[in-house]
Amino acid sequence: MSPKIGVFDSGFGGLTVLGALVRRIPHACYTFLGDTARLPYGSKSRRTIAHYAAEAAQFLVNKQGAEYLVIACNTASALALDAIQDAVPVPVLGVVEPGAKAAHAASKTGDVLVIATDATVRSHAYAMACHAQGLRALEKACPLLVPLVEEGWTNHPVTAQVIEVYLSELRAEAKAEGLHYDALVLGCTHYPLLRSLFEKAVTPGVRIIDSAEATAEAAMHLFGQNGENQPDTARVRCFATDSVDKFERLGSRFLGRPVGKVELVDLGG
Amino acid sequence: MSPKIGVFDSGFGGLTVLGALVRRIPHACYTFLGDTARLPYGSKSRRTIAHYAAEAAQFLVNKQGAEYLVIACNTASALALDAIQDAVPVPVLGVVEPGAKAAHAASKTGDVLVIATDATVRSHAYAMACHAQGLRALEKACPLLVPLVEEGWTNHPVTAQVIEVYLSELRAEAKAEGLHYDALVLGCTHYPLLRSLFEKAVTPGVRIIDSAEATAEAAMHLFGQNGENQPDTARVRCFATDSVDKFERLGSRFLGRPVGKVELVDLGG
Repeated sequence: MSPKIGVFDSGFGGLTVLGALVRRIPHACYTFLGDTARLPYGSKSRRTIAHYAAEAAQFLVNKQGAEYLVIACNTASALALDAIQDAVPVPVLGVVEPGAKAAHAASKTGDVLVIATDATVRSHAYAMACHAQGLRALEKACPLLVPLVEEGWTNHPVTAQVIEVYLSELRAEAKAEGLHYDALVLGCTHYPLLRSLFEKAVTPGVRIIDSAEATAEAAMHLFGQNGENQPDTARVRCFATDSVDKFERLGSRFLGRPVGKVELVDLGG
Repeated sequence: MSPKIGVFDSGFGGLTVLGALVRRIPHACYTFLGDTARLPYGSKSRRTIAHYAAEAAQFLVNKQGAEYLVIACNTASALALDAIQDAVPVPVLGVVEPGAKAAHAASKTGDVLVIATDATVRSHAYAMACHAQGLRALEKACPLLVPLVEEGWTNHPVTAQVIEVYLSELRAEAKAEGLHYDALVLGCTHYPLLRSLFEKAVTPGVRIIDSAEATAEAAMHLFGQNGENQPDTARVRCFATDSVDKFERLGSRFLGRPVGKVELVDLGG
């Protein structure tokens, strides 16, 4: 039997997590929901985010029959994982803890940097998850990176410059706080599309941790679904609460395969 | 008696319009509502935007007693002005038509450029309003400018470069279509904060039209409220549906005076 995995994000950026899941559990049935009518969660309060995310989780489990849930939205994982777990009776995995665990596995110095959206940083969810792994973490909000990715400037000199500005601010802050970091966590689902620019920009020896990949790895273990040696029979069905055109236009670059037709759903918000 | 003017925006960017209103009608009582829980409208569908904007207008008129309404959001003016006018019994003014009329007054060649958010451009509301004035208009979405303004990079070399990229694309498109433009309409409430960068970047002889200023001028006439020679007794009360902190932190730069305490309101979305 194919496992049924629901994947939720505030937008379509979480398709990078879905793509990583498909590569590791290729025999599953996936239902992805992007709450595009109410994005970005990044600028909203914990109360609002918890309310929206619980509604979305209930849609995936109660209406679509998901047996496992992956919260591919860093903001919702950071601010609303408890609310989601209370709302549905299936195993729920967020992206924050797997990212922190992968940082722990990669770092020798025990000091790491985390970049994310403003709300994820303000929640300090990554810092807390890193501390739980015995790491010191310095977090920084990089609000320009999502719009640059959505503009398609994933290999543009302006984007390289913006990354350089953010990284040099981070270097100065790390120095001021006496951190000897050797890992950089990409704490936003859009950032894997900037991975090659980050690889050129970081100090040599600094490992880049992709939360999407780390989460897919963790899902394999938590859900007991090892897709090794399984044929790729993945089925992917995508829903969005608005802006289906944009989702269809940009989504395939994030997923790494065609997203196909995206269905509109009204969560009543 | 002080007139009561309600001003609505999807976020706090419309504070540039409120600031322009206060300068021209300084004896009025203003209530501003930023629907920050549901921004940005720019990426949402016409149906969703009309629903949200009508709710906001009813709050300003029915709950706050506004006698006049200014829709300071380009996207809502472009996509939902009729829906708002149907929802409330007071005069409603959007920002699109005043911008087009100001472009008409400024242009000698009859060809103008309009820059705005993606949804405003996709609605072609400015192109239609310009055509109604006998102008030819070339529109372009500049989705990176709002995040750059919100990051505070209003005088940053990266922002100057992004503006140069957008303007050079516009120049090429204008050339291809045989347009001899002499005016550039800033069709987004955030863009007035980039006015000095645009003034340095445009071809000499091109006039910059600020929709916020044009709208305040039009409001003075439509509402029969000429504030000339009136003392500045303006009172401003601000509401937001979420993210009150961000509103308070960034709002004063947009308004041109302190925004003071921002009150949280729940529109039920």
